[in-house]
Amino acid sequence: MTKVTAQLSVSLDGFYAGPRHTGDGDWMASAESAGFFRVTRWATDAMAWRERQGFAGGEQDTNSEVIAETFAAAGAYVMGRRMADGGEVPWGEEPPFRAPVFVVTHRPRQRLVRGGGTSFTYVTEGLVSAVEQARAAAGDRDVAVAGGGGLVRQVLAAGLLDELELHIVPVVLGTGLRLFDADLDLAEKEGIELTPTRVLHAPQVTHIRYTVGGRAPLLLDDRGSGGGATTIIN
Amino acid sequence: MTKVTAQLSVSLDGFYAGPRHTGDGDWMASAESAGFFRVTRWATDAMAWRERQGFAGGEQDTNSEVIAETFAAAGAYVMGRRMADGGEVPWGEEPPFRAPVFVVTHRPRQRLVRGGGTSFTYVTEGLVSAVEQARAAAGDRDVAVAGGGGLVRQVLAAGLLDELELHIVPVVLGTGLRLFDADLDLAEKEGIELTPTRVLHAPQVTHIRYTVGGRAPLLLDDRGSGGGATTIIN
Repeated sequence: MTKVTAQLSVSLDGFYAGPRHTGDGDWMASAESAGFFRVTRWATDAMAWRERQGFAGGEQDTNSEVIAETFAAAGAYVMGRRMADGGEVPWGEEPPFRAPVFVVTHRPRQRLVRGGGTSFTYVTEGLVSAVEQARAAAGDRDVAVAGGGGLVRQVLAAGLLDELELHIVPVVLGTGLRLFDADLDLAEKEGIELTPTRVLHAPQVTHIRYTVGGRAPLLLDDRGSGGGATTIIN
Repeated sequence: MTKVTAQLSVSLDGFYAGPRHTGDGDWMASAESAGFFRVTRWATDAMAWRERQGFAGGEQDTNSEVIAETFAAAGAYVMGRRMADGGEVPWGEEPPFRAPVFVVTHRPRQRLVRGGGTSFTYVTEGLVSAVEQARAAAGDRDVAVAGGGGLVRQVLAAGLLDELELHIVPVVLGTGLRLFDADLDLAEKEGIELTPTRVLHAPQVTHIRYTVGGRAPLLLDDRGSGGGATTIIN
C-alpha cells in the first residue's frame, strides 16, 4: 500500500542547511550552501547517489544502500518550489528521480517533461492536492516528500506523513534552516509521537526510520518521581 | 583515563524539557515538566534508574543497561544550579549519584554532604574550575555533566566535552528548552564535528554516543554537485 514518506539529512542540532541565502550573491558560496553540503556529504559520497547523477565512483556501503532503497521505493515525489527551482538547471535533461514529481507552488506553470521518466507538475491547489496527485501517480510504490525541509515540516504538521527517515549527521551547525521549526502548530502539552522502526549506524551518519503516530497530549508522567520533580537523566 | 562526558534525553526536535516555567505555580503542572517527563520516561521506567531512587519495579532492558553503565562510569558529576536546586528535596538524604557533585553557581554555599557517597560542592569560580575539581575527585572514572541542558551546551561550547550521549526520544515537542540553542558561539561556516561510536536501538528511545572532535570550518564540498547546486537527498 502506498505510504507517504520523507527523508532528510540533518545536523545533530536539526539543521538541513545553513542560514537562508537571500541576497543576489552566489548560493554556492553562501553559508546556506556550506551547511547543506556538510549534511549531505554522506550522500554525495555514495555510489548509488552518484550513479543517479551520472557521476563516476563513490562508496558502496550502508549509506549507498540506503539511497538505492530510497530511490527504489518512490513511485512519485512531492517537492517544494524553492528546491525545484534550485535543481532545475543542475539536474539537467535526465533528473535523478525517474518518476513524476509534483511541485507545490503558487506560480502556475506548464508541466515539464524530462528524460528517464521524470516529469515536473506544478500544483497550485496546495499541499493536500499535490500529495493526492502523487499518490495517484505512484502505483504500488510510495510517495516520497523530496524536500526541502519546510515542505517536510508542512506535511508532518498536516498529518499527511506516514514515515520519516532522518539521516542524522554528527555535526553541530549552530544556526541555519531547521527542520522542526516553530510552525508545527502544536498545542501546549501536545506532541507528535513517532516510533523508531529501523536504525542504521555508519561513521558518517545515523539513519533512523520512524513511523509517524500523530498528535497526542503530553500526559503528566510522574511514575518515577516519587512525588519529586527531577531525575538525574535529564 | 578520565573523560568528561554528558548524557541528555532530548526529543526528536532537540528539546530536553518543555518551555521554561518561570511563574510561581507548580512546576509539576507546568508545560516544562510535561516535556521533561515525556523525554525522560524511558529512564523513569527503567529498573536501574528506579533502584537508584529507591523505587521498586521497572523494566530490565537495554535502557536499564544504559543507565546502569552511565552511573557506573561516573566518578564525579558537574551540575547546573537550577537542576541542583530542583533536585535537592526530591533526591532526599541519599541522592542517586553516590559520588561528589560540583554545582556551577554564582551563589556561595557551604558544602552539603548526603548519604551513600553523594556530596554537593558549590563552585563559584566558573565552569572550568568545576570541571577541574570534578576531575580531581573522579579518580580513574569519568566526570559526568549531569545537566541541565544549558550546562551541557556550555561545556560543549567551551571545548571541555570528550563524549556526548544523546537519548533521542521519538516525539516532536515543537517548543521548549533546546539543548543546541543559539549561544554556541560558532563562526559563520564553522561547525562542531563529532563521531558516532555507538548506537543502541530500543522502541522508546535511540541511544547515540559521540566522541566530540571540535570546531572545524565547513569547507565547500561540491564533490557531488557536478557544478550544480542541489541534491535530491536534502
